[in-house]
Amino acid sequence: MTEQTALSRAETSRARLLEAAVTAFAEKGFHGTTTRDIASAAGMSPAALYVHHKSKEELLYLISKEGHDDTLRLIRGAIAASDNPVDALRRVVYDFATHHARDHVGARVINYEIGALTPDHLAVIRRLRREIDDEIRALVARGVDAGEFHPRDPRLAATALLSLGIDLARWYREGGRWTPDQIGKEYADMALDIVAARS
Amino acid sequence: MTEQTALSRAETSRARLLEAAVTAFAEKGFHGTTTRDIASAAGMSPAALYVHHKSKEELLYLISKEGHDDTLRLIRGAIAASDNPVDALRRVVYDFATHHARDHVGARVINYEIGALTPDHLAVIRRLRREIDDEIRALVARGVDAGEFHPRDPRLAATALLSLGIDLARWYREGGRWTPDQIGKEYADMALDIVAARS
Repeated sequence: MTEQTALSRAETSRARLLEAAVTAFAEKGFHGTTTRDIASAAGMSPAALYVHHKSKEELLYLISKEGHDDTLRLIRGAIAASDNPVDALRRVVYDFATHHARDHVGARVINYEIGALTPDHLAVIRRLRREIDDEIRALVARGVDAGEFHPRDPRLAATALLSLGIDLARWYREGGRWTPDQIGKEYADMALDIVAARS
Repeated sequence: MTEQTALSRAETSRARLLEAAVTAFAEKGFHGTTTRDIASAAGMSPAALYVHHKSKEELLYLISKEGHDDTLRLIRGAIAASDNPVDALRRVVYDFATHHARDHVGARVINYEIGALTPDHLAVIRRLRREIDDEIRALVARGVDAGEFHPRDPRLAATALLSLGIDLARWYREGGRWTPDQIGKEYADMALDIVAARS
């Protein structure tokens, strides 16, 4: 066995454990999940889990960290795609909503289980969430400055936009009335109503 | 001790246990909470808990049942208060939002812990949630029929209105930027934007 193969096998095991942890945490919550549940869903022994990850909490942290990093990247990409606040808002709300609908299982974990993180880990995740909120708020403020948006309370409008996307993690299921794309398009239009954009 | 006093003592114990359970479930989730946690927060022994409630799950069910009954009553009351769909929408969104902000601890439990209910209990709660959803949808449909509301997708607009209120259970904290009343008023106005009400 070459060193390369050994490395990629470890990577595969680590990824499999993370995937099993997301599913288990989404279904039974962090506290309702045992390391044994995660290990056996990944086809490993509980002891094998500890070869790859320090603890159940570390798995939650890795899931949360990666999830929030992805969301922040996605939001920054969408906002950077246009100088026009109307187009940027449409795009970021579409991307944020479709992401939460498509990955509603992961989104459930990263939005509703963060209370189980250690204080140090929670601080990192809170910082990332603040950066996400700040991006949306800055975009709304930019639209207001440009005379394009006229919300009564720009900050609460930004909070409402985030709520619409995040709450998809709670209610969205595959095979329901709408596809992620349909929700994304509709929420993008709705976002312009919420910030009172002049068309 | 009269029979009356004995009865009211049992009632008091039962209520104290429910209150302790709400706080514990909101903080650590249903699975992260032990009956011992609940009993000691209520100043009782674990054995005493079982005198009053069959199980931890029964406590969750009672909390969920009462919470959803209250919400349904509140929604029906607000909607019945006016024949005018614009006024009724304003009122119901105000009441729904302020309720979720003020009782965000209880709302967290009844919105995010229902997966821990037994199938029979879950069916009861799902039915109540459907009735709540139906009330909001029917009101939006009534506004559309009256030519007052012009949403692109009435059903998704109703879902968005529910999301704004429910997500308060996740993010609202006392002492933040807005009071429940401020959020209620702002969301009532925003609701009219979401359903594209003609003013």
